[in-house]
Amino acid sequence: MTSPTTFAETYADVNQFYARQMQLLDNGKFEDYVRTFTADGEFQHTPGQPAAVGHAGIVAELESFNTRFAGDPVQRRHSFGMIDVRACPDGSLETNFYALIVTTRPGVKEPKVGPSCTVRDVLVREDGELRNRSRKVDHDQLFRG
Amino acid sequence: MTSPTTFAETYADVNQFYARQMQLLDNGKFEDYVRTFTADGEFQHTPGQPAAVGHAGIVAELESFNTRFAGDPVQRRHSFGMIDVRACPDGSLETNFYALIVTTRPGVKEPKVGPSCTVRDVLVREDGELRNRSRKVDHDQLFRG
Amino acid sequence: MTSPTTFAETYADVNQFYARQMQLLDNGKFEDYVRTFTADGEFQHTPGQPAAVGHAGIVAELESFNTRFAGDPVQRRHSFGMIDVRACPDGSLETNFYALIVTTRPGVKEPKVGPSCTVRDVLVREDGELRNRSRKVDHDQLFRG
Repeated sequence: MTSPTTFAETYADVNQFYARQMQLLDNGKFEDYVRTFTADGEFQHTPGQPAAVGHAGIVAELESFNTRFAGDPVQRRHSFGMIDVRACPDGSLETNFYALIVTTRPGVKEPKVGPSCTVRDVLVREDGELRNRSRKVDHDQLFRG
Repeated sequence: MTSPTTFAETYADVNQFYARQMQLLDNGKFEDYVRTFTADGEFQHTPGQPAAVGHAGIVAELESFNTRFAGDPVQRRHSFGMIDVRACPDGSLETNFYALIVTTRPGVKEPKVGPSCTVRDVLVREDGELRNRSRKVDHDQLFRG
Repeated sequence: MTSPTTFAETYADVNQFYARQMQLLDNGKFEDYVRTFTADGEFQHTPGQPAAVGHAGIVAELESFNTRFAGDPVQRRHSFGMIDVRACPDGSLETNFYALIVTTRPGVKEPKVGPSCTVRDVLVREDGELRNRSRKVDHDQLFRG
């Protein structure tokens, strides 16, 4: 992956990056997922909780979060859509998109759908590869109507 | 945004345009949403109803439609997928895609899913920016099986 | 469609190809859908069943599968997301993505959602057009938790 010069190249790279990143998360490969963040990356996925910071911090947060599925295995899928990408003067990218989480239980064809979320990322390139400097997730059910 | 010369550039521009456009709608910014249409744009989102025409007409239609949520606030999300883009000889774009609407109520993690729709747009460029000349929405539950 | 030289071009072409391909399937145009496969293409969409091979074989499998909807018409929609595209040295493309199937019954606004699937394709170009050499679908509800 070389540094893109067109919006089309950036947009394709971001979509590809998210596909690989979230397949890692949904396959439970937390150690690989966390390497899609910068070393000082910030990850805030639970409203009202402070962000987890750094690779060790994010892995610990993911392992803690996923204890709720211990003894009750599920296959989760995070699907991103309506991805808005803005290039910043410093070369970073700000993205803003929808995420819908779909959770399937063994033997049950109809998954549980939700929550519906919005996500704000700051992405940077390191050695030509995209990385999350930060990710902030907001949940739709917590909106102030 | 300059006039794209490759399909990749066009495809990325259309996806980005839809992301920003629908985030405006889902955030209730009707006045901003309507400016993503041409001045004489047509918007037909309710089967059997005539299209709303022009900026004032579309805003009026959206405000009328959304009175159903008055006193019962919800966060709606329109997600587009499977976007087919065809370039026409006159420089306009015809798009054809799926839309799934997801509606979340405050405090309720599992959203209501549906309706599932198909959408046909005609897009043009004005001052380099994409705009809807028309949008026509069909609802799956009204199909003739 | 000329042979793309950039990742952005490939990524846009793959997304466009999938949009048209699955709209054909969801519109019941099995004869057109099957022509998006190579003449010796393989299609395996039901876990534990052997792949259907070749155009006649795939059409027969689709017609057999869809007899379940005879007398009970539904509008199905296959939406792909999180598409990961890898270019292989031989010029083929390996893709890996999520698919969510949404099924609407006449007069019922809220569709049935599911199954949630993952799909692995091998795509090749014939006369400049993308084609499936193979497609393999896995269903989330059959995972080994």
